[in-house]
Amino acid sequence: MASNTSAERAATLILLRHGESVWNEKNLFTGWVDVDLTDKGRAEARRAGELIAELDRLPDVLYTSLLRRAITTANIALDVADRHWIPVHRDWRLNERHYGALQGLNKAETKQRYGEEQFMAWRRSYDTPPPPIEPGSRYSQDGDVRYADIPGGPPRTECLKDVVARLVPYYTEAIEPELRAGRTVLIAAHGNSLRALVKHLDQMSDEEIVGLNIPTGIPLRYDLDADLKPIVKGGSYLDPEAAAAGAAAVAAQGAK
Amino acid sequence: MASNTSAERAATLILLRHGESVWNEKNLFTGWVDVDLTDKGRAEARRAGELIAELDRLPDVLYTSLLRRAITTANIALDVADRHWIPVHRDWRLNERHYGALQGLNKAETKQRYGEEQFMAWRRSYDTPPPPIEPGSRYSQDGDVRYADIPGGPPRTECLKDVVARLVPYYTEAIEPELRAGRTVLIAAHGNSLRALVKHLDQMSDEEIVGLNIPTGIPLRYDLDADLKPIVKGGSYLDPEAAAAGAAAVAAQGAK
Repeated sequence: MASNTSAERAATLILLRHGESVWNEKNLFTGWVDVDLTDKGRAEARRAGELIAELDRLPDVLYTSLLRRAITTANIALDVADRHWIPVHRDWRLNERHYGALQGLNKAETKQRYGEEQFMAWRRSYDTPPPPIEPGSRYSQDGDVRYADIPGGPPRTECLKDVVARLVPYYTEAIEPELRAGRTVLIAAHGNSLRALVKHLDQMSDEEIVGLNIPTGIPLRYDLDADLKPIVKGGSYLDPEAAAAGAAAVAAQGAK
Repeated sequence: MASNTSAERAATLILLRHGESVWNEKNLFTGWVDVDLTDKGRAEARRAGELIAELDRLPDVLYTSLLRRAITTANIALDVADRHWIPVHRDWRLNERHYGALQGLNKAETKQRYGEEQFMAWRRSYDTPPPPIEPGSRYSQDGDVRYADIPGGPPRTECLKDVVARLVPYYTEAIEPELRAGRTVLIAAHGNSLRALVKHLDQMSDEEIVGLNIPTGIPLRYDLDADLKPIVKGGSYLDPEAAAAGAAAVAAQGAK
């Protein structure tokens, strides 16, 4: 009986990784560098909006990072889904993982230079951050006013564990109350901030999360029970075939 | 001495009427019908963003109506101005004046059918609303969930006086506290909701406001003193020449 009760949907959470960015296309480490979407990325956002429009519960509220590629993806998708008018909240704690000194470097060149093992450790190790970015260097966020409120300033590098540490408290304090009120929440964010959230939602181990890749532009739906636990672990992509192909493409980055 | 003190800028308010919409282009009464921007409207929004980017104080917070043409104009302009990440608040009280049974009608045809005097009374009289829109008619807002919280439901028609009555309390309660905190506020809204706000800011009489037209897509800047009174009555357009031409074009609507 208890399992039947807990399996009733209390709320729905939609996760959306931004569409292809200019630096995705160029195969560069991006992190907190605020690059724009490509035309393909905008098309992905429109497709995401079409998928969202078909949901039985449409988003009631939007959360985004402070980065253009997530914000624009959400703007386009919600406009297509006729939900452009819902309330919006933005927070740096939904930002992509800070990629430290790797920001701006080509992934294939980095892999060639440092070797497969180091490359994969930086990309996918749970608790090994890349080298910190130099103060004042071209792709650091020093002096960016949008991050003025972060205690100690914007990060200089992050591993996924660091992202979990900043993101989960925000999710718990800001987003869970909306879900408890029964609202459908859309989060437009990034590969690694969404991986951090999925790890939390699905209670994945530090080892399990290493193998998880989230494709761009395909909404991932989590139906949650009254305890805000996923009714189905891993949720469900609104376009499962495209999601499988997209996740494989993310895993293969650095090969080209 | 008092006048010198009060002339010091305490805050800045930027008003932005959306760029050309599909129904502006077709010369139809729009009101609360949620039409999109034209390509020209999007270009106007980009130009507005370039003008905003040159301000000495950039917007810290955005307020929009619940209508796509204002929301998209703000999204585009803030992206161009590199302020896409600022906090956003949306409220129906910034919506365009509800045009009642005129919504969806051609302005030139309406003028021809009802005569110049009646036409101008509906467009510009301070306290004469158009006939109310029929319940369930094509361009009414019955059942639109975004307006579910309006006491008594969405309006069936409004005159400018009605817009003042809903907009000024919102401005006072929601927006003035941001200005008192010294923040620069951008309001992306509509011809008549901005006329209502300008009437309030400049303490214009019911007769004076009749002659005021606000052009699309050109930011109007008000520097405010410590009492949040305009330091210069009427504010200043960020592109005065284009604003003069645009206001004349608005005044001439219905002629074509």
